[in-house]
Order: sequence, then structure tokens, then C-alpha cells
Amino acid sequence: MFEVVERDGLARVGVLETPHGRVSTPALLPVVNLNQLVIPPREMAERFGAEIVITNAYILGKEPRREDVLRGGVHRVLDFPGSVMTDSGAFQAHVYGEVEVTNAEVIDFQKAIGSDLGTMLDVFSEPKHDHDRAQADAEETIRRAREADALRGDMALVGAVQGGLHADLRERCAREVSRLGIAVAAIGGVVPLLEAYRFVDLVRVIVASKRGLDPSKPVHLFGAGHPLLFPLAALLGCDLFDSASYAKYARDGRMLFTDGTRRAAELRESGCACPVCSSHSMSEIAGDGGLLARHNLHVCFAAVREVRRAIAAGDLWELVERRARVHPALLDALRELRRHNDFLEEFEPLSRRRAMYYVGPETLHRPILHRFRMRLRERYAPPPAKGLLVLPEGDRPFSDRYGPVVERALTEADVHPLVKSLWGPVPLELDHVWPISQSVLPRAIDLEALEAAEVFFRDWAAGAGYAFGLLWEGEGTLEELRRRAPGGRSLDWNTARMRATADFQFGRGTADVLLRGRVAYVISKNTGKIRNVFVDGEHVLSLRAEDGYFTLKAAGARRLLKAFAPPRFRILVDPDAVPFHREGKNVFAKFVRDADPGIRPGDEALVVSPEDDLCAVAQAAMNRREMLAFKRGVAAYVRQGVAAPLSAPPR
Amino acid sequence: MFEVVERDGLARVGVLETPHGRVSTPALLPVVNLNQLVIPPREMAERFGAEIVITNAYILGKEPRREDVLRGGVHRVLDFPGSVMTDSGAFQAHVYGEVEVTNAEVIDFQKAIGSDLGTMLDVFSEPKHDHDRAQADAEETIRRAREADALRGDMALVGAVQGGLHADLRERCAREVSRLGIAVAAIGGVVPLLEAYRFVDLVRVIVASKRGLDPSKPVHLFGAGHPLLFPLAALLGCDLFDSASYAKYARDGRMLFTDGTRRAAELRESGCACPVCSSHSMSEIAGDGGLLARHNLHVCFAAVREVRRAIAAGDLWELVERRARVHPALLDALRELRRHNDFLEEFEPLSRRRAMYYVGPETLHRPILHRFRMRLRERYAPPPAKGLLVLPEGDRPFSDRYGPVVERALTEADVHPLVKSLWGPVPLELDHVWPISQSVLPRAIDLEALEAAEVFFRDWAAGAGYAFGLLWEGEGTLEELRRRAPGGRSLDWNTARMRATADFQFGRGTADVLLRGRVAYVISKNTGKIRNVFVDGEHVLSLRAEDGYFTLKAAGARRLLKAFAPPRFRILVDPDAVPFHREGKNVFAKFVRDADPGIRPGDEALVVSPEDDLCAVAQAAMNRREMLAFKRGVAAYVRQGVAAPLSAPPR
Repeated sequence: MFEVVERDGLARVGVLETPHGRVSTPALLPVVNLNQLVIPPREMAERFGAEIVITNAYILGKEPRREDVLRGGVHRVLDFPGSVMTDSGAFQAHVYGEVEVTNAEVIDFQKAIGSDLGTMLDVFSEPKHDHDRAQADAEETIRRAREADALRGDMALVGAVQGGLHADLRERCAREVSRLGIAVAAIGGVVPLLEAYRFVDLVRVIVASKRGLDPSKPVHLFGAGHPLLFPLAALLGCDLFDSASYAKYARDGRMLFTDGTRRAAELRESGCACPVCSSHSMSEIAGDGGLLARHNLHVCFAAVREVRRAIAAGDLWELVERRARVHPALLDALRELRRHNDFLEEFEPLSRRRAMYYVGPETLHRPILHRFRMRLRERYAPPPAKGLLVLPEGDRPFSDRYGPVVERALTEADVHPLVKSLWGPVPLELDHVWPISQSVLPRAIDLEALEAAEVFFRDWAAGAGYAFGLLWEGEGTLEELRRRAPGGRSLDWNTARMRATADFQFGRGTADVLLRGRVAYVISKNTGKIRNVFVDGEHVLSLRAEDGYFTLKAAGARRLLKAFAPPRFRILVDPDAVPFHREGKNVFAKFVRDADPGIRPGDEALVVSPEDDLCAVAQAAMNRREMLAFKRGVAAYVRQGVAAPLSAPPR
Repeated sequence: MFEVVERDGLARVGVLETPHGRVSTPALLPVVNLNQLVIPPREMAERFGAEIVITNAYILGKEPRREDVLRGGVHRVLDFPGSVMTDSGAFQAHVYGEVEVTNAEVIDFQKAIGSDLGTMLDVFSEPKHDHDRAQADAEETIRRAREADALRGDMALVGAVQGGLHADLRERCAREVSRLGIAVAAIGGVVPLLEAYRFVDLVRVIVASKRGLDPSKPVHLFGAGHPLLFPLAALLGCDLFDSASYAKYARDGRMLFTDGTRRAAELRESGCACPVCSSHSMSEIAGDGGLLARHNLHVCFAAVREVRRAIAAGDLWELVERRARVHPALLDALRELRRHNDFLEEFEPLSRRRAMYYVGPETLHRPILHRFRMRLRERYAPPPAKGLLVLPEGDRPFSDRYGPVVERALTEADVHPLVKSLWGPVPLELDHVWPISQSVLPRAIDLEALEAAEVFFRDWAAGAGYAFGLLWEGEGTLEELRRRAPGGRSLDWNTARMRATADFQFGRGTADVLLRGRVAYVISKNTGKIRNVFVDGEHVLSLRAEDGYFTLKAAGARRLLKAFAPPRFRILVDPDAVPFHREGKNVFAKFVRDADPGIRPGDEALVVSPEDDLCAVAQAAMNRREMLAFKRGVAAYVRQGVAAPLSAPPR
């Protein structure tokens, strides 16, 4: 069983339970090859904290070790106290052309030796295989997955996803394999891509596979053992990596680093902080395969820990953007990500804890900023005005900076104020929402980003229907505005902010629903910002200082429920769970029957019974796809339970 | 004494000798504060490999420790076996407004306690100080430096550079202090810049100081203790850093990383490979100031080792470009560097060992690429032709790829072929020189880089005087070329390559001098490229496979000597050294009397006597500024000694 503890987009920190203990993910599985043992598995557990290792069942199944391992079991033969995953020989088939074992035999063998996670024998698709050939192999992989599922008994099964570079095949294979009783889904056939630095293709393969995979299954990326890649692979939702590299590179005198591989003999110093490098000279290390392997393993384990840290902190994107500068092929992979924003966005949180850092033109295309611009176009309704007053980007929050200019312009001309920011156009009423309110930009911006911001701006402004837009460049602008849009008005900023934020957060038209009536609000003494919003005496919304978004209160939830038909905003739960939510208990994924496909992690949501009665107001922790897939974990944190109406109308 | 062992631009790996041993630089000097001792200095030496620490003489000089340290000496009081540098109290004056000690007193005290490197009491200029105030303080700092020099006796003195943000003052102060008998130059007054992330200003301050400083002196950047900054500071020629951060941050529960600072209590895992993080849980670490400080120190020491590794490997620029993505303010600093390319270029090698990686629009502005484009404009003489055949960028080397297209175009039209590459325009004859021959680009290039390449191209093409340029886009282009530039010729590529390379490497017109006469060449069987060039039967040049540049032979050197007046190409040495060079011994900096200001590290050079007799052909290891400043180390590696003429004409 797999449970998610923390998440950041598709990436997650999780716990995988096996008969030999719990494994924290993302996890690195060192490959143990008993024929070339360099670090004993027990040392991996005791000195490196390894919770799981992987070894090859195909190799164990051959003489002279076969009888031994059948008698003693794989754990005893390896002398490893934690979990053991076994591989099947599919990679050997890729290397040697074929293997002398069938899928059924290798499954039986893995059961017999007590593997915690046994792998089916999939058919390795080469990147060069055309669609026909890859399809045939993917279909055979699906057939064998079904066979393995039928044979697995109690053994937790690793199902494989093949399909070469063909996105449709990857997705289909992933979907079919997901339907079976697999414990882990493994993306196979990627080693040739890794060896050739084809990281753009790697991104495409992982994303296509993830589109088809059950999100509740941990995903193993077979053969990805270089720490360079862990952040990117984890960002795309991979949870398990296996590394033979630590040993193979060591035999070849090479050292792994998060920024590449280096030949030990060419270094006078490694520049590494690991226990090996901190306490040995380079000449000792370079001459000792055991030290080299231990350095490599320290670096790999630290690299997965770093990924887990980044997921928990919500800054994995930053880590990926930094790591992309290690090699131009990784930069290409980073630039490829934007092409999958439709999928990545589904998993993005509403906001993150950290400020948004701009570190290159690629930052602009993060899925969360893609969403910002998309929602601006689709959800934000610009107030009626003749023209647009365009303010140049300045320090955030914009309204503090531009207050006086805007007040004067508004009272003398019929225009709406907007900042042309790098992230996208920012109507002044929205400048307190994350990440607009919390972002750090360099002073000098590269051309690509400026150009992209210009394009977003023009695109949005063209759709917004103003007669003209005028860049504020001093007093002359005011003159021009008066001439072109005579009139003017006085804007109640707090009202404008509430309305714009509501529409932007919940969808166009929701401000009318949530704020219809006599609106009153409380201003926070600390921040000077709106804190609580009351309509007709009821507490409808609270505005969060952290990210500038609303928390929905029961009265607000009732308004949305009444105005919008299912499934909008809803998480529909099992009737058995209803009383618990009414008492304020969280929504567990296994009790979710359906949900609004528009819900994103962090969104406010209405927990409803099958009769569409409101049971609770909650903050989603998953999107619909995840809520329906997971059998473990919290789908939504209930903020406020809602009691049953005293006399529920009969249905 | 300071000796450079490896260099990469302004950055260097060196050895600083002190009465208590040799210190490898760049070095981190942990600050030892006996009033708040967290890691004993002896442990720093034994477990962390610290060769030098720094402690504050101003604090030691106060009660209750004063008598103790005067009696036992600073090494015994600290219990540290290596070198000890002492600071003077200038920073305390910055923090508290003033200190109760004079420059003369603090120098005397440091002498008395046996400091290996004693620091003068400079006047701390705040970034906000205007020119007048900063000037007054810089002049006072210069006066005190002179006083300290007069008082220092045998103690190695640390002279300080002040001047606030005023480049002229920094440069003047650096120049004046450099004239004195200082062992180390310290750039002071930067802590407020570091605290406010004003890294652009930091770059300006360091570069202005370096312009004035004697390049043979190691440079200490006072107060730069965060590993985030080591690569950038080292890139600009800083050699010593002091860190109180390891202890101060630890007291505050914070952990240092090369990508920033994090609060230990907020982490479940640090993602660090250091001995502390590899063997303790985060809850143990977070609750133990000693472990935190040790983690911080491990990270800091590894970070300086990483910088030394990068300098030795010639890839410090790559490290700086990666590190710049940690914070937008660091990206701004990276983008600032191009504004100092005139100075940085002087220290750049002719080529580097590694391929050039493109990792962002900033890569294009590295000083070595700035030089490539500058030399192309100034040195390369395009052969006469009516028009330009512009080839789109493709895989390198271009001539292999474009051979057939170019041959056809040339025989049918009077045009010259050139590739519009991202690094700059590349005449096809030059595509074997570094980095053109060895570069890795992403497939997708950002707009800023494309735009910059376009600008470089147009700028160059406008100056080259062709009637037109036509982009090759298929067969139609050939038709058009025939029409616009009827004629055509057959190009001897090897000759064209030799001529273009010679001009590009040595300067416009040198091809005429080096290749005048009957030219013959030998092609390497391995590479198919030109290996040795003979003119009139003499071996004049060899072409290096590694970087595509020429090695000058004695016959070639004689041709240059005869054709170009001093100081062009020359390193003029002391008469005493002449016989040694004639026998093939290297040129040591201390025997250099003068040199061509155009010489760059890696350039071919003529070693001449004061009578301008050729003594040897050499490869420079330094530029002129460095040759004249250094009293230690090799200024040029002699490739070939040249015997005295049998009967030297009397002069």
C-alpha cells in the first residue's frame, strides 16, 4: 500500500508498505548484484539508511545460486533486513536479445524466494522501434501483466509500462496495467534515453505514462540511477529509482555528483561533503573501488533526500530549474515541460508557501503561472471601463505603490488600472493573490521573458474588450486619459478586491453569488487587509493573509451549492461517511464517490452527500483523478462540518 | 608568499605560505570566537582539515583574555596547530560606531600575540556613504595602511580596500595599498551588501578593487561566509573567505547549504550528504547547536573544495551559472558580469579543456566568447568575395556538415561561406577552433540568445564589407547566388584554414608573415586535420587537435620577431635568465621585465633578451599585468629553447 504524505504537483513524498517494512519515497533502490558485491546490503541498511534494495531475480534464478535462494529466501541470501524488490530480466533481454525464462516462471520464482515486490517480465521497447513494433510489444506486455496478476498470489506485483517513444502506446499500456492488482507501476525502456541524454524524450515518455497511470500507485523509473535526474523525474511523479550506477561507475573509477560524473583520477579534490570525501584524500578514494562506491551511494541517497526535502518545502521546481543548468540537454527537458502544462496544471496546488523566484525565461512557463494567465482570461471579469491604464512593473504589492497614481486617474477618467507584470497582466484588484504578492524578480530580465509577458498581455487585453490601453509614463498620461475616456469614478478598492478575488478563485460569476446582499467586512489590524467578509450578517468568506485567497465558510458554501449544479465545487462522499464530515472529520479518498474535475489541491470544496446535501466545507488535498484512485490518505481537509437540516425534506 | 597552482580566468588555486604552514586557496577561514566556542579549533584542523582560522584581535585584546594571549600567543590560546589570521576590529566599528583602539595599537598587539596574518584597522565605508565621505575614509584607510606597513615588522600584513560603492575609490585604495608590503589584500565593507542580497553591487566592488590590486596578492573578501557566494567571489579573483556564519546560523537553528539557508526545525530531512546529515536524524540535528555548526562547517569546506575543483577543471563559469539560479539577485549578478568583460577578458585563457555548454542567455556573454567576437572583428580578414553565403547553425564541425553545399556554391558563385552560430558568426575556415569545435547547445534556444546572435552577426557582416548576404535555404539559394555574384572559385580549404587561424590567433596580417613562401603541410592520419606546417622547408607551426589553435615553432617565432616590433608577442626577460631559456627552462615571473599587453594565458609568446634576441618560444601562463606583479610561479612554459646565433652582431 502506498500513502502520500506530502505533495508538490505530481511529485509526492510517500510511504510504501511492504512485508519487510515501510519505505519512504521518493526512494533510491541500490542494485545488489551478488556476483559483484561492493557494499554489503546490511551496510546499506545500517550505514546508509537504505530501506529497500533491488536485485535481479533472473540472475538469482540461475546456477549456482538458484537452490540457495530458493531454500533461504532472497532476504537471507542478501542479508538485508529491509524490503527487497526483484527485477525480472527484461533489461537483460534488451542487452542480450533474449532471456531463457518465461514471464510465468519468473513470477513463480519471485514468489518462491519471498520478494517483497516482484516484477513481471515485460517486453523492452527500443526508442527506435516504430509504432507497429512498439504496439505489438506493448500489447504483449499488457498480456503478460494480466498473466502476472493472475499468478502473483500474495506477492506485491510491479507492472511495467512499455511503448517506446509512442505517447499513445505508453498511455494505453499504463492504463491497462493500472487496472490490474499491481502495487507499483514501472516505466521501462528508458535506459537508452538516459544513456544518450535524450531528456526531452524522457519527459515525453514519463508524462504519457503518467497520463494513463493510476495516480495512487507509486511509479518506478527503471534504470534511472544518476542523481542528476532525480529532481526532474520526481517532478513528473516518479517515486522509485534504482541505481546500479553507484557500483558500475565506481568500478570504472568514476564519481557521481548531482551535477554530473567525474573521473576520480582527474580530481585533486572532489568538492563533496560526504563522509568518504570528508575523511579521505582523493588519492585514497581514486584507488579504492569500495570508497568510490560508498561516495556514489552517499551522493545518491543525499540526492533523494534533497528531493524529498524540496517536495515537502514546495520548492522542487526551483531545484529542477537549477539542475537544468548542468547540461544543455537538461535545459531542453525543462523547456519541454511547458508543452505538458495541461496535465501538470491539474496537480498544481492553489499556491505555495514560498515566494516565486524568477531564475530564467523558463520560470514563466511553470504550470502554476500558466494557470494564473489561463484563469485571468477565463475567470476574471474586468469591470466596465472605456480604457486600460497600464502600469509598469514595480515593487509588489502594486496597489501600495500605485495607489496615488491610480486614484487620480480613476477619478478623472473612465479607465481600469492594470500592471503589466512578468507573470502576466495583473489587474490591481488581484495584486494580493499568490504569487503576485510574493515574487522576487531580478532587475535585469532577459528578452524571451519580456517578449512572452508582452504577448500574454496583448492577448489578454485584446480579449478584454477595452477601447484602448495607455501606458502610464507620467502626468501627460493623465491628460491623454481625460481626453480619451472622459468621466471617471471612485473605486471602492476593498469591494473590487473581494469581487475580483472571488471570481478568480472560484470562477466567473461566483462573486455575484457569494457577495449578493449587504456586504460588510473586517479589516485585520495587523495587515490592514480584509480579513472576514459578511453578507447579510452571515460569515461567508475569510481572506487568507498567506496567499491572498479566500477560505470558504459554511454560509458561502451554501450560496455556491444553491447557485451551481453538481458536480461544480463538490466532493461527493459515501453516505456512511456523511455523519463524520458533519462533525468536522476529514474526507478520506476511499469514501469519495465523485468530485468536480475542476478541483485542484488547495481549492475550497463542498463536501456533499449523494443527495447533494452540504456536509462540510473542506480544502481539497487532491484533484478528482486522485480522489477516485486513492484508497488511502486524505482527499480533503474539512474546515467546518455542517449539521444536517433539522427536517430534511424527503426525496 | 602566495603562489598560483591552477587558474581559470581571475580565479586561482594557490598556496599561501605562513609561519604556521601552507594554506591551499581558495580557503575558508572559520571565525573562532573564544567567548562562544562551538567547535574547538583543534577539531577544525583534525576533523575538517582546516589549515587556517581567523579570530578577532580586538576581542582578544580586551579583558579578561588580554594577558593570557599576550603570554601564550594566539596559537596556544586557540589551541590551533595551523595558521591564524587576526582581524582588527574594523567590523566592530561598523557595528558599534567606534572601537577603543588605534591602528598602531592593534598592529602592535597582533605582532605580540604571534598572528600569522595581522590586519590593519581600516575605516569601514557604508554603501550609503557619498563620494566625499567614502573618499575621506578611503584616504584614511590608505594612511593607516602605510602606518601599519611601517609598524608591521616581520608580521605578514593584511591591507584593506575600502571606498564604498565608488569604483574609482575602490580602485585607488586597492592600488595604493598594493604598493605596500602587504601579504594579503582584503576587500572590506561588503557585509551590508551581502546582508541585503546586493550582489550586483558586490560584483562592482570586487571588480573595481581587483582592477587596482596587485594580482600577485591573495584577496580576502571580508565577511563572505555563505557557500552560496564562494563560486562567484572566486570567479572574480577572491581567494580567502571568513565564515562566522557556520556558528551564528547554528545558534539561530539554521543550516547553510550551497543553495541557501534553511531552518532546521522546518526540515524532516536536510538532503545533505555531509557526515552529520548522513548519520543523524533531523530531530537530533535540529536540537543540537554543535551538530548544526558542524553541518554548516562541512558544507562550507566542501563548497570551497568544490570551487577549487572547478578552477582546476576549468569549469568555474559553469558552476557560477548554475549557482546563479538560486536567487534572482544572483542572476542579476551573473548578468552584471558582462559589463566588466574588458577586464575579465585579460585573464581568460586561450581555450579551455571542456566543451562549452550553453545553459542560458548569460552564457553568450562569457568573456571568452566576448573575445571570440571581438577578435573575429579585429583580427579575421574575410577573403575577397562579392557576397556572403550564410549557413544556418547545425552540428559541429560545420565544414563536415556543409562541405557539399559550400563546394557547389563556391565553384559557381563568388561568395564566402559563414555559419550564423549562437556564439557569433563563424567563417567556415575557423570552425575547428575552440569553442566552435566543442560546444553543446540545447535544441531550443531562448529568444534573448537568438536576438544577441543576430545582432552580433549583423554587426560583423556590416563591417566585413560584402555586397550582400544570402541565407542558404536550399537549391533556390544557389540560383540566386549565381545571379548576384557570377564567377566562382575553387577554395583550398587547408590553406584557408591555416591563414584564417593564424590571423585569428596572432592578429590580422600574421598569416602573411608566418606563411609567406612555399607552404607544405602534414595531415594527421588520426584526425584527417592539418598537423604540421612547413614554409620554405622550415617547421613554422603545428596545429593542435585539442583546441584548433597553432603551436608556434622556432622558425615561426623568428618570422614574427622580424616582422613585428616590440613589445608585440614578446616576453622580455632578465639577461641572467636568458641562458636558461635558451636551454628550454621555463620563464619565471620574477625574471620578466616586460611583456606584450596583448598576451593572454595560453597564448604563444616569444621569449626575448633585452636586446630583443629570441631565446625561446613559450606558452604564456599569465598576462602582462600578472607577469610583472608575481615574484613566484611560471610566467610562461618554454616549448622550445633557441640557441644564440653563432656570431651575434655587436650592438
